Amino acid sequence: MLQSELFSKTSRTVSSDEVSVNARLLTQGGFIDKQMSGIYSYLPLGYLVVKKIEQIIREEMNKIGGQEMVMTAIQPKELWQKTNRWQTPEEIMFKIIEDKGEPTAGLAWTHEEPVTQIAQRFISSYRDLPRAVYQFQTKFRNEPRAKSGIIRLREFVMKDLYSFHASQADLDQYYEKVKQAYLNIFNRCGLRALIVEASGGAFTKQYSHEFQVLSEAGEDSIIYCERCNYAQNREVAKGQVGEKCPVCGQGKLAEGKSVEVGNIFKLGTKFSESLDLMFTDEKGEQQPVIMASYGIGPGRVMGTIVEVSYDQAGIIWPESVAPYKFNLIRLGDDVAVNNLADGVYKKLTAAGMEVLYDDRVESAGVKLKDADLIGIPWRLVISDKSGKKIELKARNSKETKLLTLDEILSKFSVRS
Amino acid sequence: MLQSELFSKTSRTVSSDEVSVNARLLTQGGFIDKQMSGIYSYLPLGYLVVKKIEQIIREEMNKIGGQEMVMTAIQPKELWQKTNRWQTPEEIMFKIIEDKGEPTAGLAWTHEEPVTQIAQRFISSYRDLPRAVYQFQTKFRNEPRAKSGIIRLREFVMKDLYSFHASQADLDQYYEKVKQAYLNIFNRCGLRALIVEASGGAFTKQYSHEFQVLSEAGEDSIIYCERCNYAQNREVAKGQVGEKCPVCGQGKLAEGKSVEVGNIFKLGTKFSESLDLMFTDEKGEQQPVIMASYGIGPGRVMGTIVEVSYDQAGIIWPESVAPYKFNLIRLGDDVAVNNLADGVYKKLTAAGMEVLYDDRVESAGVKLKDADLIGIPWRLVISDKSGKKIELKARNSKETKLLTLDEILSKFSVRS
Repeated sequence: MLQSELFSKTSRTVSSDEVSVNARLLTQGGFIDKQMSGIYSYLPLGYLVVKKIEQIIREEMNKIGGQEMVMTAIQPKELWQKTNRWQTPEEIMFKIIEDKGEPTAGLAWTHEEPVTQIAQRFISSYRDLPRAVYQFQTKFRNEPRAKSGIIRLREFVMKDLYSFHASQADLDQYYEKVKQAYLNIFNRCGLRALIVEASGGAFTKQYSHEFQVLSEAGEDSIIYCERCNYAQNREVAKGQVGEKCPVCGQGKLAEGKSVEVGNIFKLGTKFSESLDLMFTDEKGEQQPVIMASYGIGPGRVMGTIVEVSYDQAGIIWPESVAPYKFNLIRLGDDVAVNNLADGVYKKLTAAGMEVLYDDRVESAGVKLKDADLIGIPWRLVISDKSGKKIELKARNSKETKLLTLDEILSKFSVRS
Repeated sequence: MLQSELFSKTSRTVSSDEVSVNARLLTQGGFIDKQMSGIYSYLPLGYLVVKKIEQIIREEMNKIGGQEMVMTAIQPKELWQKTNRWQTPEEIMFKIIEDKGEPTAGLAWTHEEPVTQIAQRFISSYRDLPRAVYQFQTKFRNEPRAKSGIIRLREFVMKDLYSFHASQADLDQYYEKVKQAYLNIFNRCGLRALIVEASGGAFTKQYSHEFQVLSEAGEDSIIYCERCNYAQNREVAKGQVGEKCPVCGQGKLAEGKSVEVGNIFKLGTKFSESLDLMFTDEKGEQQPVIMASYGIGPGRVMGTIVEVSYDQAGIIWPESVAPYKFNLIRLGDDVAVNNLADGVYKKLTAAGMEVLYDDRVESAGVKLKDADLIGIPWRLVISDKSGKKIELKARNSKETKLLTLDEILSKFSVRS
């Protein structure tokens, strides 16, 4: 991509109502655009990141047998009345007006109701179980106070997986598989996620887990072991800060703020009973299907990555989700420099590498500042100072190296 | 994919309110599920088709320099009041209730307003032009009477491209590029689209074109040349049925019903003037940016494909958008048959082929009927009658061939 043709531009300033790090850096870098409170568009640069996160999630969901589908945003009142979720969370569900008068439809803030209804068409016997389906679909939540940039939104895409089982044992086994898939996802996105037994909420604590990433931007407070994976919400934590970890017995417990990047729930038969999703077991008896649901918001993952991976100059993307792998920058307007840079761009892109090529007529200062702000992992600078060589620098390091094109191609295993 | 584990199942019957061919076959085949009038979920089988259509569109948009992004569904009242589209099309825009009282936000039924507002952040000089951005995003339209299955919906994903230009000549040139890209898209999806100069609508006819596919399911009536690409809406057509084509002078004119699968509009400065999207031209003067917008609904494309490609037994998918390339079917419960079929499945999937493998314990009649209904392009049947060979049949042909596995692998260029 030629940076001179990129739809977005960086900006040095940002509206003063953007208090979070992620909203500030993502807005300045040209990744997102605020439409309303808690409602953001993803600009081309930002959408590249979202798509990579989604693809990582998709691959891990497919590995555990998830089948991708997509349900509807508009949801009928009658369906949600059956589970008593039409009125109860009235602060959450946006209602839409079809005609005059009382609303008869709302916007889905989760999809347990429709997925249970759809499953009824296809699940009637133990032979039809287990099943797991997932989607990437917009959720709408009338959050009383959206803040934290793209971490807590009123409109956002969520990956939600729903699983259906004939027995608790089968659900328990699958639940552990999803837990591992979630750890893989966060790990691949460069996040260290702690698994926290959730306290309260709509379900009792032993039936749900949260994936928490330590960050000052977080709304939650957790007690965690500095060494192993042990973590609990502060209110319910059994250990105190400074004590030995009750699980590994070696690490010390510390307290921190954290962002919830995913959550998983054992729903049991709550929805299958309300919506009559039954199956005939091996003895010929009717039983309610046992369900679980599992959520991750790719946008929240993106916001959290920024919160834990930035410096004074800008974002530092992990390579797995970066919009581009290389930011190629040419400085000055020397013909030899331009020719060399054009050649490097052609060679890298022809080899399938993702390159943002700063071919703009801008000062060195502007170009290097923009590169730091946007945060692409590898910076390649070509200038009259570098001669026939190219200056390579990782975004997360201060070290620069002067290399020939061949050395760079070979370092990144690009076939020349 | 093992058919025994597929989330959806076929059904022989369908609700009597599904009058269209596409809704009937897609529902029976397990591709879609109706949530409300004009609002459908895509089941895993259907979503595979949608994703392929989207990918074809994405490739063609990228080829003409489109940059993918995604805007928001929720839209603020103030923005749409500036273009007089908050109240005027009140039958189209769903309003949402945030708090008590009058709605202050609605659901986007198109995205000219937000894209123009966002472009204001980045376009201020002729050097920033031209630009083209597109998205796949849900549109919500309160259609008074949704029918025609997934062809006319109240909630649907649209690919909408918006282009920004400094001059009318530049727009005209790009508009022709998009026209060609659209023809490529429909062609790749197995549809023959005619380009019709649109009559009326919100803009005068010379500024918009529709892409129409001949089908009895269509809502439009067109006069078209049986030989060349000439077509016009019946109301404004200059030629009569049976006359020589006024363009090629050779084909005869005929009349037919058609489905609009895409449309493109030269918006001019309507939105840039209302929303103050100006740029400084080369003489240093302020000018409104000249815009165009271009839409295709992947779901409508999918519905139209079904309307023009089916028979009494079910759907006939073109290979480019089929959920799977092969439907491998084993008949009976002979151990040798099962082993051979398992081996073929493994070999094909290991080679990256997309295979739906009917490993279910069902009668031959059920399996073969389901295969015809689902409409995967290539059927491979293994039974005790076929010995060590495999019966190959194309969905759109009656001819069967008995081939060895090696012959099949070589026919489809699969490396064994």
